[in-house]
Amino acid sequence: MVDVAGRTVRAAQADATRELILAAAERLFAERGVYAVSNRQVSEAAGQGNNAAVGYHFGTKADLVRAIARRHAGRVEEIRARLVAEAGDARDVRTWVSCLVRPVTVHLAALGSPTWYARFCAQVMTDPALSPIMVEESLVSPSLRAAVDGLGRCLAGLPEPVRAERGVMARQLILHTAAERERALAEGRPTPRATWEETATGLVDALVGLWTAPVTGSGDGV
Amino acid sequence: MVDVAGRTVRAAQADATRELILAAAERLFAERGVYAVSNRQVSEAAGQGNNAAVGYHFGTKADLVRAIARRHAGRVEEIRARLVAEAGDARDVRTWVSCLVRPVTVHLAALGSPTWYARFCAQVMTDPALSPIMVEESLVSPSLRAAVDGLGRCLAGLPEPVRAERGVMARQLILHTAAERERALAEGRPTPRATWEETATGLVDALVGLWTAPVTGSGDGV
Repeated sequence: MVDVAGRTVRAAQADATRELILAAAERLFAERGVYAVSNRQVSEAAGQGNNAAVGYHFGTKADLVRAIARRHAGRVEEIRARLVAEAGDARDVRTWVSCLVRPVTVHLAALGSPTWYARFCAQVMTDPALSPIMVEESLVSPSLRAAVDGLGRCLAGLPEPVRAERGVMARQLILHTAAERERALAEGRPTPRATWEETATGLVDALVGLWTAPVTGSGDGV
Repeated sequence: MVDVAGRTVRAAQADATRELILAAAERLFAERGVYAVSNRQVSEAAGQGNNAAVGYHFGTKADLVRAIARRHAGRVEEIRARLVAEAGDARDVRTWVSCLVRPVTVHLAALGSPTWYARFCAQVMTDPALSPIMVEESLVSPSLRAAVDGLGRCLAGLPEPVRAERGVMARQLILHTAAERERALAEGRPTPRATWEETATGLVDALVGLWTAPVTGSGDGV
């Protein structure tokens, strides 16, 4: 028979095992590619004697990817909710672009060095089978909705298809710029900016330019 | 004994087999992910009775990825060389940005629908093990060098680290915007632009804004 304290210990052990597996999977996926890494390799890297530990605790690879994404989503949401609250009813593009960029860079900076999350996200978003997982997870973020709406109010003159187009571009740019910096840091290559905060400034500058660029009408493009 | 004509027929057969394998691999990699697809699946999709056909004709998966990249590189290089020659010593950002964007979209448009190349490239560039292949292949392009230099002459006032940073951003944006459009077309989802040519116009507009955006000095960022 297991008493209440015994149950609690076992639950805590299971939580710790899950945490070890998530950390190992995120690192291996970022460094080698999501599909190049087997569940067996993740189990071994997490120090689990049982090679089926990943399957037991997480199910499929898609479930594991979702669990890694959720592990970060709460913290990113907290940061963005705070920035959106500070932005209030701001009417300048830069403030709202900042609400899109800084939650990612502030979170990555807070994780300390090295990080793996940005490379993990970039791979998942580019993979045809896995990208729907990340899209679903982002759709449930109230602060992301608020930031996109705030930006939209500043860009009322932009035709809707161009706004949609630049929205996708901005998402790609934030994701892949963060991943590229993370990769350069991991490989000891030089980076154009010294810190995540300065990286965010560079991204915000570029994205303000992108969002506010004049729109060429059809027929008069170069 | 095999005579000269016999050799030629066999060489032509081998070329045709290689071509079938490249086309099948590009499609499967784009649709399912480079690592999710086995050499055996590629051999089968290429109609090869021998499941080892991929290994025999191409060696490793990295060799196969390089061969797919080269299959397109020549045509992209031709288009870009022509645009660079037309640009001459132009001094406006838009002309040079166009030399970076249009070779990709003109090539994709010429391939007809559906295409797989943009999704293939985006995956390869995001994969830690495969991205060096694409970078190496792009380094040998004289027209790319000329276009980057032409753009640099128009942006002489931009600090070198910011120019490097925006160069990486531009590459990411071109690649992932093309892949995103290709994916939407393949899945029958709506796209912000009707044609590859209009997609290029949207990308050029956005990238001109990105390249010419004011630079926030360190310490005065939002």
